[in-house]
Amino acid sequence: MNSFGENIKLTTFGESHGVAIGGVIEGFPAGVVVDENFIQSELDRRKPSNDKASTTRKENDRVEILSGIFEGKTLGTPIAFIIRNENQQSGDYEYLREIHRPGHADFTYDKKYGHYDHRSGARASARETAARVAAGAFAKTILQEKGIEISAHIQQIGNAQTPDEMGRLIEQAKTDGDSLGGIIECVIKNVPVGIGEPIFGKLQARLAEAMMSIPAAKGFEYGKGFRSATMKGSEHNDTYMFDHSVKPATNNSGGILGGISTGQDIVFRVAFKPIASISKPQETVDKQGNPVQLINRGRHDICCVPRAVPIVEAMAALVIADNLDF
Amino acid sequence: MNSFGENIKLTTFGESHGVAIGGVIEGFPAGVVVDENFIQSELDRRKPSNDKASTTRKENDRVEILSGIFEGKTLGTPIAFIIRNENQQSGDYEYLREIHRPGHADFTYDKKYGHYDHRSGARASARETAARVAAGAFAKTILQEKGIEISAHIQQIGNAQTPDEMGRLIEQAKTDGDSLGGIIECVIKNVPVGIGEPIFGKLQARLAEAMMSIPAAKGFEYGKGFRSATMKGSEHNDTYMFDHSVKPATNNSGGILGGISTGQDIVFRVAFKPIASISKPQETVDKQGNPVQLINRGRHDICCVPRAVPIVEAMAALVIADNLDF
Amino acid sequence: MNSFGENIKLTTFGESHGVAIGGVIEGFPAGVVVDENFIQSELDRRKPSNDKASTTRKENDRVEILSGIFEGKTLGTPIAFIIRNENQQSGDYEYLREIHRPGHADFTYDKKYGHYDHRSGARASARETAARVAAGAFAKTILQEKGIEISAHIQQIGNAQTPDEMGRLIEQAKTDGDSLGGIIECVIKNVPVGIGEPIFGKLQARLAEAMMSIPAAKGFEYGKGFRSATMKGSEHNDTYMFDHSVKPATNNSGGILGGISTGQDIVFRVAFKPIASISKPQETVDKQGNPVQLINRGRHDICCVPRAVPIVEAMAALVIADNLDF
Amino acid sequence: MNSFGENIKLTTFGESHGVAIGGVIEGFPAGVVVDENFIQSELDRRKPSNDKASTTRKENDRVEILSGIFEGKTLGTPIAFIIRNENQQSGDYEYLREIHRPGHADFTYDKKYGHYDHRSGARASARETAARVAAGAFAKTILQEKGIEISAHIQQIGNAQTPDEMGRLIEQAKTDGDSLGGIIECVIKNVPVGIGEPIFGKLQARLAEAMMSIPAAKGFEYGKGFRSATMKGSEHNDTYMFDHSVKPATNNSGGILGGISTGQDIVFRVAFKPIASISKPQETVDKQGNPVQLINRGRHDICCVPRAVPIVEAMAALVIADNLDF
Repeated sequence: MNSFGENIKLTTFGESHGVAIGGVIEGFPAGVVVDENFIQSELDRRKPSNDKASTTRKENDRVEILSGIFEGKTLGTPIAFIIRNENQQSGDYEYLREIHRPGHADFTYDKKYGHYDHRSGARASARETAARVAAGAFAKTILQEKGIEISAHIQQIGNAQTPDEMGRLIEQAKTDGDSLGGIIECVIKNVPVGIGEPIFGKLQARLAEAMMSIPAAKGFEYGKGFRSATMKGSEHNDTYMFDHSVKPATNNSGGILGGISTGQDIVFRVAFKPIASISKPQETVDKQGNPVQLINRGRHDICCVPRAVPIVEAMAALVIADNLDF
Repeated sequence: MNSFGENIKLTTFGESHGVAIGGVIEGFPAGVVVDENFIQSELDRRKPSNDKASTTRKENDRVEILSGIFEGKTLGTPIAFIIRNENQQSGDYEYLREIHRPGHADFTYDKKYGHYDHRSGARASARETAARVAAGAFAKTILQEKGIEISAHIQQIGNAQTPDEMGRLIEQAKTDGDSLGGIIECVIKNVPVGIGEPIFGKLQARLAEAMMSIPAAKGFEYGKGFRSATMKGSEHNDTYMFDHSVKPATNNSGGILGGISTGQDIVFRVAFKPIASISKPQETVDKQGNPVQLINRGRHDICCVPRAVPIVEAMAALVIADNLDF
Repeated sequence: MNSFGENIKLTTFGESHGVAIGGVIEGFPAGVVVDENFIQSELDRRKPSNDKASTTRKENDRVEILSGIFEGKTLGTPIAFIIRNENQQSGDYEYLREIHRPGHADFTYDKKYGHYDHRSGARASARETAARVAAGAFAKTILQEKGIEISAHIQQIGNAQTPDEMGRLIEQAKTDGDSLGGIIECVIKNVPVGIGEPIFGKLQARLAEAMMSIPAAKGFEYGKGFRSATMKGSEHNDTYMFDHSVKPATNNSGGILGGISTGQDIVFRVAFKPIASISKPQETVDKQGNPVQLINRGRHDICCVPRAVPIVEAMAALVIADNLDF
Repeated sequence: MNSFGENIKLTTFGESHGVAIGGVIEGFPAGVVVDENFIQSELDRRKPSNDKASTTRKENDRVEILSGIFEGKTLGTPIAFIIRNENQQSGDYEYLREIHRPGHADFTYDKKYGHYDHRSGARASARETAARVAAGAFAKTILQEKGIEISAHIQQIGNAQTPDEMGRLIEQAKTDGDSLGGIIECVIKNVPVGIGEPIFGKLQARLAEAMMSIPAAKGFEYGKGFRSATMKGSEHNDTYMFDHSVKPATNNSGGILGGISTGQDIVFRVAFKPIASISKPQETVDKQGNPVQLINRGRHDICCVPRAVPIVEAMAALVIADNLDF
């Protein structure tokens, strides 16, 4: 279950503290001009920045493309890329051999696999998402050729909805040794009508699967989402109008009807929980059941939401590219 | 894209006004005792009932099992079943040749396929979900053997959260020729720890995909869901305790960490939009762009939520069964 | 593993002595005119005929199409069809509860599944191939639209290569209570250049997989096949010539280079073992290890090769259709 | 179509003259001790050796494992590995921009993709098989744990069946500037009874697909193979005997019945055509249709069969491992 997509398929690999992480993209069309700087710049958007919400861990994350491109254009063969892990301070994690960190996947990985890389939840680490962002940059390259634009933004951090409030909340959480969640909204423009498949291949099902596969995502909704539950059919239905062609007059549907794109903006939102790693001491028990006070020693973000923006875009790009005809 | 699942895979077929609908279940373990009455009884839960929210259309929906069972036990071979379509009144839909119904998939199907069965959105009809419910009943059979219980209930219709309020709202919507949405909550008990796969096979991603593939579903969340966006890490993290074994002390996570079950109750919610077919006249345009007032002549539910309960359970059962080892 | 194909995917179901066998075809293009009589006529080619090689068991094998077709044209939705089992004489097989028939799959199915339908090897029965032939007829329908012709013929029965010799051999085997194998050659004309995928999707790999999935098939070769092992590069290489366009001057390659069609005839051969069920007494042991003389009481073919011709064609049609663009 | 396998899945990537080739193995069980020297030694078996049949091109082929292993044991996460391409002399191939080499995939790749890496057929190069051999070595590691042994050997080169004759033939072909084909036989010992799946997952179908995906393979047969076509049922059937348990007394079946392993040796053969690249001048036409005499300037093997032995074993190992339970 390390692959995503049917036609354009991404397979990711790599542990956060191993030699490298990376991915293989199959089914990518031939003859597409690829700008390696763009791939790298997308990856840079995901890096911990100097802003207050991010970890001070420094990751260079240089992408190396190993295959699938010749003389600057794609060959139609698999595109493999790797990102070497440089900043490994395994010692930081040694104390975790005997404890499950609350809110992390240590507990479930341990129960499931027995043997695992305790140093950072192995594959469960959010570092795996760097491979998704790189792959998403390839997907965006073909979407851009078709005029399709994907743009995600932070709608909410905690209950703050303006930059000022968000900044204040983050500052406070940092002081408290605590962490914050939030909501990201994503808008996809210029998707042609007719993208998506009936029944189990509905565009919203693929988007939901994609978004809920992002670490820390707890909810997905599109169009009016949970709010539609309180609307009446006469309010929610988008009637049709004629403007050069017949098209929906409003977009309560969020750009998808019956699992297939209407040609309108596709709009969806993803809720993220607060980051599990906090500086504040936590009262818990160790693997033997002895009470213990956990104090995280690693460097961690206060809020994953800013760094999740390019990940949401990347996964959306992979879903849309996967559904296009070439 | 008519298949769902990896290990236990359901493929559904059939148009709502064709000869029959049905499904094929591959990967179902051998030697399981199957009670055909239980399969039928689950299907009966999905039928339009006599309550006020449902259509007066009568569907007998008798399931016929064609293969995969010998002397009352599964063979490990594909289980095929069909449900013949009995109550076909194609004439009812003849007026729809020239119009896209607001909120329905007619528009997108027409754009995508050109030729389609205008009589009821073909595969887009909610009737396809009968096959899911039948398949879900097979899945429940093996879950029951392992003590796993799946139970969904209506949490909200419109903004009503008690039966009395819901009844009043439905009565009113019926009078108004309007329709209602709602929210279903589902709880899965006794799932063993360790179910689910990392990265793209996370349990929440599979559940989200499953739920968002149900017609009219607009949102999915698990655990604290969208509410977790406003919580702090110190509030949201489930610390561990010792009670016979080490386990999470609270369940904000909704029974899943890192995509893998914790052994606690799995809790999720699905939001449904109001039904698109309403009796109230709607001002729209026909396929040529001429203004037209649409008055639906078919018989329709006021609210899909009561009938969606067994569908949510069925899809959840398919996801969990798909992730179990046999 | 009851499915075949990636883009046009067939899933078959049904035990030879259950209620029905059938199949579901996904990914079939929309708008294709389907002649049900042609589907039935292909199925009739696979029926036991009155010729000497076939069983006297009478199978009517009426195909019923349940979905995917509306007003004579495909909808692009799954095509489901069933063939009810009519001629069930389970009593014939009662003596097989205690014995593994030599050359049949009874032994391996028993070891693998424990519980199985002893009446005719359940899914291992060649009856399952009726579903393949029906599905192949659908595939042929789209191939015919594109001018692609698939034609298989018997190249050899035993060591006989002319009809007269074959007839004599079959007559003799019948007298002896024995059975015969043979070789089928298949030629596919007018396949456009460029069909097939590199690496693991090579056309010859897909054809080999398809043919070796037919019961009793023991070998597959294409082009010069096993004979190419004794040829030199200078003999075997097809050089190019110009005739309206550049194309290979000879066809030692069998119409495929690097896994991709050259535009020439695709030519391959399949070897079949003699039928395992023979009237001649066989000295063997029962399931407890006691020596026993097995005398088959069912009605069986002398040679499966004549009836395998439409199966070879059907599987070839599925492979080619699966690789075409629509 | 760069992936092979269902449960243990290999995806390969890389062009023969790009940065690197490599693979990702998904589904590999956790906790397996991996000996990197063994992986490398298997790869070394595939290298051009000093014997007369091989090219003088020097390939170091050092495998680098990037993920999936921690403290010498597998994690159950994807195993990614790369082999950097070192010996690139692109100039060697510059003259091929204007010509399709007879017997190579240049023609079909050009027709299919338009833009491709002319330097060595890109992915069509046999170099891709290095990734298969490395992956096969991982598969062998788990087979060895279960006592399963895979051993392939050269049965025939040209029509020579003894080492002396083979040596003489190769010497002669070298002098003539020609090339040779041959046949490899593979025996798999100690496969437990019950491996393989019915219908389309038959072990022989998976093996055939695997073998026919190897460049230059032209035929596959198992057990008595093509020879079974001339045998009678009474000769070919393996009756049962009792020796500690009930088992087949002979092995005409080649260790597989109904697609499922019998517990006996699995025996199959693969025919390879002579290598397409020969030193001897070939009269052909260029891409414009002008007559031209082609003289290959690259360094090439005389016969691919010796180097194909570890490839056959690797693909067999992947098939068997894919079918085992862990």
